[in-house]
Amino acid sequence: MKAEWIAVDWGTSHLRAWAMQGETVIDHGQSENGMARVAKGEFQVALLDLIGDWLGTTPIDVIACGMVGARQGWVEAPYSATPTAPIPVAPVRVPNTDPRIRAFVVSGLKQLDPPDVMRGEETQIAGFLFKRPNWDGVLCLPGTHTKWVQISAGEVVSFRTFMTGEVFELLRSQSVLKHSVGDGWDEAGFSDAVNDALSKPEQLAARLFELRAADLLHEQDPGTARARLSGLLIGAELAATRAYWLGQQLAIIGADKLADVYASALGQQGAFVETVSATQTTIAGLLQARNLTRETA
Amino acid sequence: MKAEWIAVDWGTSHLRAWAMQGETVIDHGQSENGMARVAKGEFQVALLDLIGDWLGTTPIDVIACGMVGARQGWVEAPYSATPTAPIPVAPVRVPNTDPRIRAFVVSGLKQLDPPDVMRGEETQIAGFLFKRPNWDGVLCLPGTHTKWVQISAGEVVSFRTFMTGEVFELLRSQSVLKHSVGDGWDEAGFSDAVNDALSKPEQLAARLFELRAADLLHEQDPGTARARLSGLLIGAELAATRAYWLGQQLAIIGADKLADVYASALGQQGAFVETVSATQTTIAGLLQARNLTRETA
Repeated sequence: MKAEWIAVDWGTSHLRAWAMQGETVIDHGQSENGMARVAKGEFQVALLDLIGDWLGTTPIDVIACGMVGARQGWVEAPYSATPTAPIPVAPVRVPNTDPRIRAFVVSGLKQLDPPDVMRGEETQIAGFLFKRPNWDGVLCLPGTHTKWVQISAGEVVSFRTFMTGEVFELLRSQSVLKHSVGDGWDEAGFSDAVNDALSKPEQLAARLFELRAADLLHEQDPGTARARLSGLLIGAELAATRAYWLGQQLAIIGADKLADVYASALGQQGAFVETVSATQTTIAGLLQARNLTRETA
Repeated sequence: MKAEWIAVDWGTSHLRAWAMQGETVIDHGQSENGMARVAKGEFQVALLDLIGDWLGTTPIDVIACGMVGARQGWVEAPYSATPTAPIPVAPVRVPNTDPRIRAFVVSGLKQLDPPDVMRGEETQIAGFLFKRPNWDGVLCLPGTHTKWVQISAGEVVSFRTFMTGEVFELLRSQSVLKHSVGDGWDEAGFSDAVNDALSKPEQLAARLFELRAADLLHEQDPGTARARLSGLLIGAELAATRAYWLGQQLAIIGADKLADVYASALGQQGAFVETVSATQTTIAGLLQARNLTRETA
């Protein structure tokens, strides 16, 4: 099946692509060829491997967002500085591509003080705002590196990145806690831990080894340990983002298990949270980015 | 050279042994055969490999402390519960050893609420208190898992364990921060980060990714990033242990670079800190443990 254009989300660990006809997805594919696995000079090969069947004889647009625009990526797409519209400039064209494609990469955003960067989330934000042009509030984008983004009048005013997902995974799989954290879940344990981290954030460092000791001394269930570890780390994130979510209009971009966990933590603090699909906002954002390439062509 | 007895510190990552004549060290050795590398059933082989030259024809005492007394260790030495003297019971004899040795393992300590455990540090504490029988105050034992221990009237009243060292190493070497944290040090950056974590512990989670972004946007020096990461994590530990160190008599057991870092962080908060040698306190503690085996023999 031939595409009219191709939407691509190319992050650190995944490469996802959608064959598009206007605003409609007609096919999709994904591979493990994220940035972390693709060497400089091999980006086009990795991409064509995934999208080759969608290409015809006339060149079509490929619009990509994510870490692929980093300095070590396919082409460097320089950051735009906040405050700014999520996609304020046309995507950067990749030079010397296969003649069947015209490839473009969306620029990320930077905030100078406190220093912060994003690549990929700006596209989701653009997609979200396209559907809700007058939406003001705070977006939470959960992931390995969760972003909190303050939106006003169509612009990204400020944002902060949290390594919560990465820290959770390292502690769960690589630290001494790996002996005590297992499968399963305990919603009450999660809630307790979120509350604990929010009400006594200065005690966070004392809580981690407790998960190991509670196993050795009290045979704490491995699923409870998992939920408590998640709750402590997300609670610490909520303590640091209180000004972002307290009394604000709030939406989570994401509709997976991790988004549910964030929604649960915020909900128990009395925040009303809406969740929207990350895939749909990504594709909608890439469509906006494509329109920008055509306006400036 | 033949030993009168042998002192052994057997932790997760190291095996250290000292050939003793009374209270005097006459030789020493160490290997990488920590608990993590030695399978059940191979402990004696790993030990004899290190101490074989010190053995004669008559059996001599080998007194060991550390993780070797865990359930997965050479012999399980059950925890003693706080409040308690650091070594309240005679070490547990290892059954069926080589006829040239009589091996004993010192019991660890446990605290039921909040749950916590130690193995090895109790021996250092016993050694410290042997030299200062009337010392009351708080001991800090820096390491992969740092312990804070409240001492009163010769007993361990309470203690808390912090995974600060392990978390630092995981973030430095395995997380996205590995691209921005390098060799070198920046004492001012360390101090700033300690102060920041102590004064705004609820902001800790927001500070980590900043180390990556400050590199990407402001080319922050890798040594500064290292010092700031260390400062943030140690600052978070000091925030959680404020009741332990504020206005207390304080000693750090350890005289290495890590102990210096803790002493610097505490010193800048106005705490007066003494540091003592971990090796000397370990050996002094093992000597106490050996005396207990002889009293009960």
